[in-house]
Amino acid sequence: MYARIRSLENISRSAPLPSPPIGWTRVHASRVKHPCIGNHPEENDGKGEEVEWRCSFVRPEGVWRIPSHSVLHIPSQSSVLTSHELAITSSYTATQLVEKMQKGELKSVDVVTAFCKRASVAQQLVNCLTEVMFEEAIERAKECDEVVEREGGRGKGLGKLHGLPVSLKDSFNVRGTTTTIGYIDFLSRPPATTDSNLVALLRSEGAIFYCKTNLPQTMMTADTHNNVFGRTLNPLNLGFTAGGSTGGESALIAMGGSIIGLATDIAGSCRIPALCCGLFSFKPSAGRVPFGGGVAPGRLGSPSSIAPVVGPMGRNVRDLELMLSTIITDKTWEFDESVVGVPWRKVEPVTQSLRFGLIRGHPKRPLHPPIARALHSAATRLKEHGHEIVLLDGLIPDLWDIWTLACKFFSLDPKNMPMEILKAAGEPPVPSVEKMSMGDNKWEPTLDALFDMNIAKWKVVKKFHDLIVEHQLDAVLLPGFQATAVPHDQYGEALYTALVNFLNYPSAIIPYLEANKQLDEPFFKSDVAYEPPYNAELFEGMPAHVQVMGKPMQDEELMEILKVVEEILGKNT
Amino acid sequence: MYARIRSLENISRSAPLPSPPIGWTRVHASRVKHPCIGNHPEENDGKGEEVEWRCSFVRPEGVWRIPSHSVLHIPSQSSVLTSHELAITSSYTATQLVEKMQKGELKSVDVVTAFCKRASVAQQLVNCLTEVMFEEAIERAKECDEVVEREGGRGKGLGKLHGLPVSLKDSFNVRGTTTTIGYIDFLSRPPATTDSNLVALLRSEGAIFYCKTNLPQTMMTADTHNNVFGRTLNPLNLGFTAGGSTGGESALIAMGGSIIGLATDIAGSCRIPALCCGLFSFKPSAGRVPFGGGVAPGRLGSPSSIAPVVGPMGRNVRDLELMLSTIITDKTWEFDESVVGVPWRKVEPVTQSLRFGLIRGHPKRPLHPPIARALHSAATRLKEHGHEIVLLDGLIPDLWDIWTLACKFFSLDPKNMPMEILKAAGEPPVPSVEKMSMGDNKWEPTLDALFDMNIAKWKVVKKFHDLIVEHQLDAVLLPGFQATAVPHDQYGEALYTALVNFLNYPSAIIPYLEANKQLDEPFFKSDVAYEPPYNAELFEGMPAHVQVMGKPMQDEELMEILKVVEEILGKNT
Repeated sequence: MYARIRSLENISRSAPLPSPPIGWTRVHASRVKHPCIGNHPEENDGKGEEVEWRCSFVRPEGVWRIPSHSVLHIPSQSSVLTSHELAITSSYTATQLVEKMQKGELKSVDVVTAFCKRASVAQQLVNCLTEVMFEEAIERAKECDEVVEREGGRGKGLGKLHGLPVSLKDSFNVRGTTTTIGYIDFLSRPPATTDSNLVALLRSEGAIFYCKTNLPQTMMTADTHNNVFGRTLNPLNLGFTAGGSTGGESALIAMGGSIIGLATDIAGSCRIPALCCGLFSFKPSAGRVPFGGGVAPGRLGSPSSIAPVVGPMGRNVRDLELMLSTIITDKTWEFDESVVGVPWRKVEPVTQSLRFGLIRGHPKRPLHPPIARALHSAATRLKEHGHEIVLLDGLIPDLWDIWTLACKFFSLDPKNMPMEILKAAGEPPVPSVEKMSMGDNKWEPTLDALFDMNIAKWKVVKKFHDLIVEHQLDAVLLPGFQATAVPHDQYGEALYTALVNFLNYPSAIIPYLEANKQLDEPFFKSDVAYEPPYNAELFEGMPAHVQVMGKPMQDEELMEILKVVEEILGKNT
Repeated sequence: MYARIRSLENISRSAPLPSPPIGWTRVHASRVKHPCIGNHPEENDGKGEEVEWRCSFVRPEGVWRIPSHSVLHIPSQSSVLTSHELAITSSYTATQLVEKMQKGELKSVDVVTAFCKRASVAQQLVNCLTEVMFEEAIERAKECDEVVEREGGRGKGLGKLHGLPVSLKDSFNVRGTTTTIGYIDFLSRPPATTDSNLVALLRSEGAIFYCKTNLPQTMMTADTHNNVFGRTLNPLNLGFTAGGSTGGESALIAMGGSIIGLATDIAGSCRIPALCCGLFSFKPSAGRVPFGGGVAPGRLGSPSSIAPVVGPMGRNVRDLELMLSTIITDKTWEFDESVVGVPWRKVEPVTQSLRFGLIRGHPKRPLHPPIARALHSAATRLKEHGHEIVLLDGLIPDLWDIWTLACKFFSLDPKNMPMEILKAAGEPPVPSVEKMSMGDNKWEPTLDALFDMNIAKWKVVKKFHDLIVEHQLDAVLLPGFQATAVPHDQYGEALYTALVNFLNYPSAIIPYLEANKQLDEPFFKSDVAYEPPYNAELFEGMPAHVQVMGKPMQDEELMEILKVVEEILGKNT
């Protein structure tokens, strides 16, 4: 690692990084004492011995790059996991795993070991991890099993997440583990001495932390890429982004290396990776999930009225509910002073017809055919099942204007701290950071402007509110992005996810359908400018999605609605 | 009114107002078409005819002032109210009135008329009203009674507040009624065309609005005094403040002219008037009660993290609960887009021993003996009833520093809009505004400073949180002010109430004991500087109080705790 830092010292911000060698680079970092998780077989001996170095995954960017392809099949074809371990990591929901471990039908040590192994495989293929805590995790799993043994499988074990391995975005602090969030400047920081508030809470419910996952430099792009850990790849197509900012998490879960993970989200960071990798995710209303005690990519104390939130990413709605209902209780506030301490409410399952608003995109970012088809198909199926659809296009405020205003809220810091952090280490911005406007000095935030920004924001919030009340909507269907995952560094604006943060509504991504050249063709429009460019061949097979937005603080009601949508969309027509 | 405006035009800000004449001044204001509510008998004929003028209550400030005294007894001694009307306005709780009206045992028209009459009497004595809507209110009451008649008294009538007269701080909008909030500049504004969101909600639950009440110029002082409506007096002692900013409400309720009213509170505006007039009030967690749709005294869009809230003021805990549980439902968000839409939770009554923190004040604002005695006695009684007291003095952050920081949050607007509004009309500040530091130009707010202010604030919030968690506290007992009500324009800093807004915890004022020279004497300290000065004779008989602070968003739990405190403190030892 130090070698890398030195090599960066004399690089100006505008100069490109020197081409990395093919394969992998061994970087000395004496403070790292973990089982090797490098991608070269000789380091990956699985014995878990402590080593004084780590392998940084580096991917050639030039002509030596291998053709794009999916690596989803590799874990089951590799000999690393036994068939039992493959079953553990792929045949259950998190909810089922917890139940089985509480009853003693599965051992936590087996579950945790299986996910550690699969995470190791994933790391070698898509570079999704930042820190590993495999040994500690397996030790903790043994303690879990002992409790169940003492209870004879008749209790709840250590809590609602008894023995369950949970993966974490790198920005969470886990005591004893470093949190660089991909900033070279943060490499000199000592390991965390305390857990993030949410980590402490989940520990108390029996969750087991075994790895942290990669994220973009500054955490403000949809490309999980930084100068410390390199770039995370999309397991469905290595040439594509896994999304961001929580792209290490989505790549890991898609690879089966985790069953549920925790993301942050201020403009889509929990939902973008999910939609890029064909996963479910839930962005709660702000303040419901403890956010404190982590490491931020920028300056603390922002007076922005768009608050970052934490949400789960996983493989189905029920697991997201397990996670949120575990986190949000009458004890949550005790773990985090900034939480809106309202316990998860028990609401009745949906039995009546629902009314969905439908937003079909903005002219500046027209929906790629696969997404247009998914949204159309979802709305059609919901109607077929007796639910109502109310078209909101033309009624809502301009989404591009909202995005523009949101970006101002994201860059209120007169000191522009993320860029200062890069400068402090002489670290160049990664391409996706270079491309974004955050470093643009033309926008000079002032306190006076912030008053006016808030008023402009309130008007938008009121307009959406009034539409929802007027049309008696239960939820709104909209895209999470205009496309499926896209090639690296092409994601661009996140207007469809940031809208929801701007409004502070809860929303979720439900994976639905896949890009299919033939089926998508009727949704192609020759008179629009797709951004990024649409190429049916390129996107073939990539997962599509719908975003479902609920009403503020009605996270519980949205969860019930999601179950309905999941069931209907999961059924074959 | 216009005469007054003209007379002010040539007055510079620093020049004192010319001495007003004794008694009352008739001021022409052609847009005012209401039954006269002046304090001169010939205008107060009770016939409700429309007149083209209104009487503005003006109180001599010089040697012609009559000696301080209480006017609480006058409504029952005057011949304005019948004995039935006196009973209606003084012998029931709001909860009982609603029940009786729903059953048809009392007619809303009688209840509303009784409160209109008593409010008229109150106005003549303490100048508490700004707008009256007596005729509309009585018409609405008739509709309520017709509904009950149709239901045969077996239904809920028009809602949870069926037929109940509710008074409102002037800053709420009621359609068809002007909202000047005491600014001369706002006199030129047309009447409101829409209701404030909360007003609309309460209307839908059968509440009847019959008057709006006075407030201080800028709404940022504890002296309800402005150049449009003059000064509201404390019914317990006309020489004392009724509190602010919702002092018209407290004076009216104390006079029996309202049974429950609605206040706003960003530093104590709902609680200060209550403690000044011997009433109960409840400041909820921010966002639980609709705030939108009213008229603000300053610039909208503030990025301050101290949010204004709305809370009820009344005569007992049960009525406060009736009001809040009516307002906070699963429909609340539909009335106001900025509400934290969490329905009022049903929590179990307290059956176990509670743990109270105790804050006994700050050295810069030591407690006057009556308040020290009330707090000591309350803590002692709670202990006698099996509850625990944990002394927090010395453990908490410095309250004066918190007050200083809070004031910065209150004055973030670089444009200092309240002062601009005064300038626009050539209106001088009233004495309490002149005395406060808001007009002080030394503090120059910047966006950069706001980041640091937020971090400083978070540290305080975390410290309180950690203390409450560490000591497993259910609530905290503290003063709402260091004194009882004080003579006009002497209130000064509101550090004990603003603390709670700063933390965004819910809190309530419970009136308890009265200043009693003999009993207070042991609590007198000769080595402290009381501010304002303590004079046992002067304060004799004024109501004392305790403030009870709950945990954030646990408004429901606090309400149950208040019932316990109310019962224990209400019992004779």
